[in-house]
Amino acid sequence: MVFDKAVKMNSFQWKKLPPAEERQLDKAAQVCKGLAVAMVARANSGHPAGALSSMKMYMAAYGAANVTPQNCDSLDRDFVVISHGHTSAAAYATLAYYGFVDAFDAVNEFRRTGSRFQGHVERMVPGVDWGSGCLGQGLSAGAGFALAQKARGYDGRVYVLMGDGEQPKGQIAEARRLIAARKLTNVTALIDVNDIQISGRCGDVMPAHIKELWEADGWQTILCDGDSFAALYAALKTARAAGRPVAVLCRTTMGKGVSFMEDKPDYHGKAASGDLYRQAMKELGQPDLVALAAEHKKAKFSAARALEPLGAALDLGAPKVYGPADTTDNRSAFGSALAEVGQLNYKKAGRTPVLVFDCDLAGSVKTGEFAKKCPDSFIQCGIQENNTATAAGAASAGGVVSVWADFGVFGLAEAYNQQRMNDVNHANEKLVLTHVGLDVGEDGMTHQCIDYVSLMSNFFNWKLVVPADPNQTDRATRWALKTPGNICLAMGRSKLPTLCANGKPLLARDFTYGEAVKVREGKDAAILALGAMAGRAVQAAGLLAEKGVETSVYAVSCPLEIDESALTEAFQTGTVLTVEDHNVNSGMGSLWLARAEELGLRAAARRLGVHRYGDSGPSEEVYAAMGLSADAIAAALEDLKKVAR
Amino acid sequence: MVFDKAVKMNSFQWKKLPPAEERQLDKAAQVCKGLAVAMVARANSGHPAGALSSMKMYMAAYGAANVTPQNCDSLDRDFVVISHGHTSAAAYATLAYYGFVDAFDAVNEFRRTGSRFQGHVERMVPGVDWGSGCLGQGLSAGAGFALAQKARGYDGRVYVLMGDGEQPKGQIAEARRLIAARKLTNVTALIDVNDIQISGRCGDVMPAHIKELWEADGWQTILCDGDSFAALYAALKTARAAGRPVAVLCRTTMGKGVSFMEDKPDYHGKAASGDLYRQAMKELGQPDLVALAAEHKKAKFSAARALEPLGAALDLGAPKVYGPADTTDNRSAFGSALAEVGQLNYKKAGRTPVLVFDCDLAGSVKTGEFAKKCPDSFIQCGIQENNTATAAGAASAGGVVSVWADFGVFGLAEAYNQQRMNDVNHANEKLVLTHVGLDVGEDGMTHQCIDYVSLMSNFFNWKLVVPADPNQTDRATRWALKTPGNICLAMGRSKLPTLCANGKPLLARDFTYGEAVKVREGKDAAILALGAMAGRAVQAAGLLAEKGVETSVYAVSCPLEIDESALTEAFQTGTVLTVEDHNVNSGMGSLWLARAEELGLRAAARRLGVHRYGDSGPSEEVYAAMGLSADAIAAALEDLKKVAR
Repeated sequence: MVFDKAVKMNSFQWKKLPPAEERQLDKAAQVCKGLAVAMVARANSGHPAGALSSMKMYMAAYGAANVTPQNCDSLDRDFVVISHGHTSAAAYATLAYYGFVDAFDAVNEFRRTGSRFQGHVERMVPGVDWGSGCLGQGLSAGAGFALAQKARGYDGRVYVLMGDGEQPKGQIAEARRLIAARKLTNVTALIDVNDIQISGRCGDVMPAHIKELWEADGWQTILCDGDSFAALYAALKTARAAGRPVAVLCRTTMGKGVSFMEDKPDYHGKAASGDLYRQAMKELGQPDLVALAAEHKKAKFSAARALEPLGAALDLGAPKVYGPADTTDNRSAFGSALAEVGQLNYKKAGRTPVLVFDCDLAGSVKTGEFAKKCPDSFIQCGIQENNTATAAGAASAGGVVSVWADFGVFGLAEAYNQQRMNDVNHANEKLVLTHVGLDVGEDGMTHQCIDYVSLMSNFFNWKLVVPADPNQTDRATRWALKTPGNICLAMGRSKLPTLCANGKPLLARDFTYGEAVKVREGKDAAILALGAMAGRAVQAAGLLAEKGVETSVYAVSCPLEIDESALTEAFQTGTVLTVEDHNVNSGMGSLWLARAEELGLRAAARRLGVHRYGDSGPSEEVYAAMGLSADAIAAALEDLKKVAR
Repeated sequence: MVFDKAVKMNSFQWKKLPPAEERQLDKAAQVCKGLAVAMVARANSGHPAGALSSMKMYMAAYGAANVTPQNCDSLDRDFVVISHGHTSAAAYATLAYYGFVDAFDAVNEFRRTGSRFQGHVERMVPGVDWGSGCLGQGLSAGAGFALAQKARGYDGRVYVLMGDGEQPKGQIAEARRLIAARKLTNVTALIDVNDIQISGRCGDVMPAHIKELWEADGWQTILCDGDSFAALYAALKTARAAGRPVAVLCRTTMGKGVSFMEDKPDYHGKAASGDLYRQAMKELGQPDLVALAAEHKKAKFSAARALEPLGAALDLGAPKVYGPADTTDNRSAFGSALAEVGQLNYKKAGRTPVLVFDCDLAGSVKTGEFAKKCPDSFIQCGIQENNTATAAGAASAGGVVSVWADFGVFGLAEAYNQQRMNDVNHANEKLVLTHVGLDVGEDGMTHQCIDYVSLMSNFFNWKLVVPADPNQTDRATRWALKTPGNICLAMGRSKLPTLCANGKPLLARDFTYGEAVKVREGKDAAILALGAMAGRAVQAAGLLAEKGVETSVYAVSCPLEIDESALTEAFQTGTVLTVEDHNVNSGMGSLWLARAEELGLRAAARRLGVHRYGDSGPSEEVYAAMGLSADAIAAALEDLKKVAR
């Protein structure tokens, strides 16, 4: 063990930080700085100079936060978000100081293949509440955790550690505004103002008037000496009592404590090695920590933290059944189920709060009824999608059921990297995309989300459901609200027929993720239809039947989870057409046919889908113009039958 | 024809707008408002109220800009960017007033399937310089056009029309900062401050202190009555002489001129029909323009503007040849070619300017040498990727060769929707993604761009090249700089061997887009290797040869353009393995195997790729840990051979 007993200050018991505690912290900071330099030196890779400038800020934040190795896997505690994730060496050193991890493990395992101590901080290290590495997202994550605390009725705090180089990122401004608008006065941002980024002085690279910008968005700012624990303590104590969100601008020096790194951009991302490493350790008053750690090397890397999926305690109500004569749109079926489940659980003891996020589209995405019934759980985020994606994701990791409904192009295309980071972070977001495919009415090409299957197929931990009709939408909505993990429901804008067999609703039954439901039986050919395209495919099958071609239709509602038995069965007909109102290159058809090729399934097979940006017009006309009407589907299958012969 | 002669004011010949001209404009504004209401009524779809509040702002901007039906297809003129593209009815009415389009065509064809008058403005309508519909991007496009004007030495102006609901979007702040930092004093933003968005008052939905925020970023603001042409003229005249970028905050009233639409959110996105339509036309003093337009209906919709690809006049120099003994990374080969071409053409008469955009990563993406040789052509954008993507795209549509080099996760994942809009806009961006695949060194999972093939496969007009070695990188770089259209080059971080046959460099030859080059010959099996994975695949083939399995290796450098003859040839071996350091579900393997299934090609086929987020460590170790070393490739192919038997 390297450290003396750590100084926690989360009760803020002192009026000022006492000199004895300050001395203890200063001494520990030297050790932490040594560890950070050693980590980077051992790996010969990393970001030492920013780790040194941020070190006291890290220690003050983790010292001030009610978060410990014991409570960090629970929810009733403070949260700390690291936005400038490349200063990971400072994070790991601080977490070692406060007992979350072993200091020597961090030195031995930093940036090594198979280790949890990745180059950018990840949640597999206890004490890390949000994995980062893409700058500009941390404050949004802080907003999400604070919203979750508030919804859960827990009186905690959220600290967000940031760099100054990232301040120009627009998402930060979005997050500031959401935090100010929702009066999340328990959020404190600490910004490492060392005035250096990779390309030089921040003001030369891209001027951003940090103080003015934060204040223009309604925050209080405090200027603070980031090299002084007394000053940091005083600032954080002031922030607790401010009654407003506070940004602490910590004046620091890049590379502080190692003379050849100080105030220079060179060591932003370069290790000190050889004589320079030894000089650094000497200046920091530390022994050769690389060598010392090597003596404590373990046979195996320390284990990554397992993130338990967060279950939801919810009364899901009774599914609604849409009959053969009903026509509604999937958006409305979703909105109705959401509002019902929302109301059943709203402010009820023992239930998981459901938060619904909106970006000024509640009327179109059908979350308005929920907003009326559960007003305190409706989070208006304005037209700020990047921030909303991260905030909704972090809130879902903070213990609420977090639903964000938006148009497909905004909820996913516009916020793609944020949703990727929600994937990396094993969040539990429920993302509802409306206006997907060509079914956006007259809004035209910019609003046609014809890439969502492709975008989602890049993620490892997201599930995607494209309901085929309102009954499946209702069931899938209730299922998603309760099921842990990131789940996306995608739906178009238009009214749809209820899918029926023998005059009875076919999908008014439990939703099973990964099942391609056969909605029509036929021996001569098969159509695999993405989600709501199943209705048109059934119409097409009717047209084909008149010409003597009996066609099976499968509703592929889970395009990322290939139902191999359905796929095999479809190929047994000898003719397989995939149908989707999605880019034909990158959608369900490619995923499923590629798998068919691997499985050795043989048939005449073709993909039908979207080949160009679409027209602006009434949906039915647009589908016809784009070759995706029932007639066009039938014609494509007839053509394919000729090949099959 | 509906209009009197239009009032242009781009020479700003008057000290104040004379009363006669103001009366003419006011009268025309009533006609334009009538046209906008008629368009929306005819389509029964659209956004009338915002079109009415923005109408005079539109007319003033197009009146003030040196842009005409005659010069709008050329480059030496002013540019007008519409950021709030949903107010398209106002745009089309204004463009009719200034003679770019026929007013009746706009009424008859607005939001109709097959028409150029889409719900959100697109470049296929002359006078529209940038298609929009995703809010928050317009100012960035304005920055791009202004940068292009400056680089081309043309003394013009750029007007950007914006809404107030979009002001919270972070990308706008990024654009403000770039414009201020580059001293693009010829940019004027006009903001329609009607204080209403879909969900209500802007200040209730998401407070954004517009004046303070623009000023904090270094802009001059002018408050202006947006309902007065005299005030708009005065503001725009002041802006011309300000010597700083200016934002004109136009106070307006939502739905201005139609009493039942005024100052209410209801008609944000709803048509006035029946009696209400007639009332609106009466209040605006207009005849039934829907009926009038119907009398002038043509047999066919008016033709979309064809956008000519912009060629580049560049001396490409002589390709560099990397010999068998050279090892360099593709990044450096790109950087070296770029700097050479840059210098050859820098500030030379008759040559197309080359602009290189950077987001604080020049050292890593190897554009530093270019920056040294061509300092005025290097555009430092700071850590503001969303803005950079749009600015680089628009600059490329403004007549320069526009190169943006960034890490894959930042240049594409973070800016995905912006690159999609560059696709919609038929831009000519040259996007260079480094650190793609698993080849990012120790930065870890957040920095591994294992989705770029998938993301690019969603676009219809982008080309993607993943060079297999430094020779191909050099050739492809020169080719991309000269070839019109959006082109992406993607490359990893590590040094690579030169691909050779018989001891001679194999790829030191003209680059042909769409060719999968066979880099090793073998009859027993085939590997289709994505880009730089070709090197590892050749090593694997060597290992397999020792076991008697002669394996062909194809370097798939153009994964989106399936080389069907190479694919067919590969399948003739009976065993096909696709290999990529990309998400295995969504990459080249899926695209190529799906096509093989359609073509009826039969073999034992498998995809090898990335199945989880990756480790943080030295590249070679990471590839081994992720099952993508040469050994692992060889083992996977041996397994597959067993199936093939």
